[in-house]
Amino acid sequence: MVWMFGIEIWEKMIPVRMMRKMVWERSMNKLSRGLSSSQIRKPRPPSLVSLDLIDEWSSTFTHSHSPPIQKSTVNNDSARIIDGRSAAEEIKSSIAVEVSRMKESIGKVPGLAVILVGQRRDSLAYVRNKIMACHEVGFRISIAELPESCTEDDVCDALSNYNKDASIHGILVQLPLPQKSLEQHFDEGKILNVLSLEKDVDGFHPLNIGNLAIQGREPLFIPCTAKGCIELLLSSDVEIVGKRAVVIGRSNIVGLPTFLLLQRHHATVSIVHAYSENPEVITREADILVAAAGVPNLVRGSWLKPGAVVLDVGINPIEDPESEHGYRLIGDVCFEDAVRIASAVTPVPGGVGPMTVAMLLLNTLEAAKRALCFT
Amino acid sequence: MVWMFGIEIWEKMIPVRMMRKMVWERSMNKLSRGLSSSQIRKPRPPSLVSLDLIDEWSSTFTHSHSPPIQKSTVNNDSARIIDGRSAAEEIKSSIAVEVSRMKESIGKVPGLAVILVGQRRDSLAYVRNKIMACHEVGFRISIAELPESCTEDDVCDALSNYNKDASIHGILVQLPLPQKSLEQHFDEGKILNVLSLEKDVDGFHPLNIGNLAIQGREPLFIPCTAKGCIELLLSSDVEIVGKRAVVIGRSNIVGLPTFLLLQRHHATVSIVHAYSENPEVITREADILVAAAGVPNLVRGSWLKPGAVVLDVGINPIEDPESEHGYRLIGDVCFEDAVRIASAVTPVPGGVGPMTVAMLLLNTLEAAKRALCFT
Repeated sequence: MVWMFGIEIWEKMIPVRMMRKMVWERSMNKLSRGLSSSQIRKPRPPSLVSLDLIDEWSSTFTHSHSPPIQKSTVNNDSARIIDGRSAAEEIKSSIAVEVSRMKESIGKVPGLAVILVGQRRDSLAYVRNKIMACHEVGFRISIAELPESCTEDDVCDALSNYNKDASIHGILVQLPLPQKSLEQHFDEGKILNVLSLEKDVDGFHPLNIGNLAIQGREPLFIPCTAKGCIELLLSSDVEIVGKRAVVIGRSNIVGLPTFLLLQRHHATVSIVHAYSENPEVITREADILVAAAGVPNLVRGSWLKPGAVVLDVGINPIEDPESEHGYRLIGDVCFEDAVRIASAVTPVPGGVGPMTVAMLLLNTLEAAKRALCFT
Repeated sequence: MVWMFGIEIWEKMIPVRMMRKMVWERSMNKLSRGLSSSQIRKPRPPSLVSLDLIDEWSSTFTHSHSPPIQKSTVNNDSARIIDGRSAAEEIKSSIAVEVSRMKESIGKVPGLAVILVGQRRDSLAYVRNKIMACHEVGFRISIAELPESCTEDDVCDALSNYNKDASIHGILVQLPLPQKSLEQHFDEGKILNVLSLEKDVDGFHPLNIGNLAIQGREPLFIPCTAKGCIELLLSSDVEIVGKRAVVIGRSNIVGLPTFLLLQRHHATVSIVHAYSENPEVITREADILVAAAGVPNLVRGSWLKPGAVVLDVGINPIEDPESEHGYRLIGDVCFEDAVRIASAVTPVPGGVGPMTVAMLLLNTLEAAKRALCFT
């Protein structure tokens, strides 16, 4: 299995990830005057549903190579560091206890299946983390590895098999699926539609998202990163009701569900994205800021309200000759600035990341309990 | 049929609607110090999904009885009045043309079915408007009237019949369903789940909402009021991409879908609700403001950014001895203030309301074309 590469894969990963992020096709100034043709995915008639634009953050906001604020000028005591790693460990411990109880009581354990298409290096690393976490808590885990050359039908067949497998309670398709070419690619929507709702532990099925959005309804599963963010806020005693919350980034897997969940918790929520004019003006109003743009150091001190609580979802590898592997991971938030200005901040790594994995385990445990009528 | 009462029903309606809105159980000051027990719908363990609170706007924001700004001080020429009535007429005319073409070509017309439970006076008025609009454009319309004493199964049976009826292409259940008592009420979610997705012309099914929320997916139907709002913005040449939009109110039928649709059009959107602290600070930042709180004159001049585009979704009857029927309809926005400060504003009545009905017809036409493979 390829994830034996271990953590070294990050090293080779950098150019790919950096290149992807550094295709800055426009500046915010250009945006305010009008959109370039390259931003419009494909020509189509004006639609009431949406204008089809690609989210790419302006180069104005790439700070990954600007020098960090000198440590000597930073008051490291000012912001509380929200320790996602220890919070996740605590959750995993209680999951392990539940798994033991389940095993003793009915002789079964929760089962998670992961479908991995191709060998995207970041996907391999994420899958490897999930395998380790499953082993830690005593889950059964099954991986279906499919070559990049496989068809949509192959993926759907693997899904159908897991749908029928009574020992599997949660299934996830590791996203993003590899893009074969501009013309030929996997239809994520079509594939996810095959996934049994009761096993959709990522919570990405549109029915789950719809039920998360609609007041008075309950989704079967809450997407893991959004759930991890709220869990960190609640366990850190951060007041949410009525507070201004801003989510940076509007991806289907993080930004959107985090918005919906914060809104359910009665925050006053705004979503900032690549087309937002003057995003820093909006983020400066945030009592709670969730950064999930995938842009290293996007959020500097000038973007923060003094005393804000900052959750950094970004995991961006950047070159660093002084580090052991020649790179280090940084978030979307300039940590040194946040420590100075915010009242609490999650570090990268060791913040939201471990919580996401813990929430996946929690969702799978819930799915297993539901399927096995175990309380 | 009871809608023969005609427009007079509004007169009797006032006390009911006013009473519903005037149960102000708290002030915003109280909110910032903590929540009263009456605001929590039912005791339940802390949940990651949400804290179960009832949306009730503070009495601080009830301006319905405060005197309007004197006409003499208002510059009536400053804001463009967005004429929803004539925009809706235009859309209905083109729908009528399509219906004629369909009838001539395949001998069929779009069919809309409405399920009406009980005799809520506002519901009767809304249903009456829909019947008139269907007649105008040449749709077939069928109404299932059920007594308030009927069961959930009765409603589901009526729905199932319409699901099977090939002459019906769109079905809606007139909301809200009457509440029998605190303990016994209709489960809207359960009832809407029975509705065939292909006939859900209101677009309220969670799968439709999920597909509206998720980037890259397309819902079968966009909820009518949200669609009407965007249609008005587009037809008025209002720039949306990158602009600050604020939606006041987060109902499942207006606020939520309007947020989602504005977000798809790349506005930077915030939702303000009854628990938002200092809502006027947020609304003052809005280039586009959609007011859908159901509170008469909630939005005064101090809530508006000069030059903003204001869409007023509220339809609130208030007493007015000088009016023919002793009452008049006003919106959530103080129109006199908006005319002075905004660059464009929808009136009430004659703004978003007629567009909502036009969009229902458009959704039903789309449903019929899809079902009949008519292009």
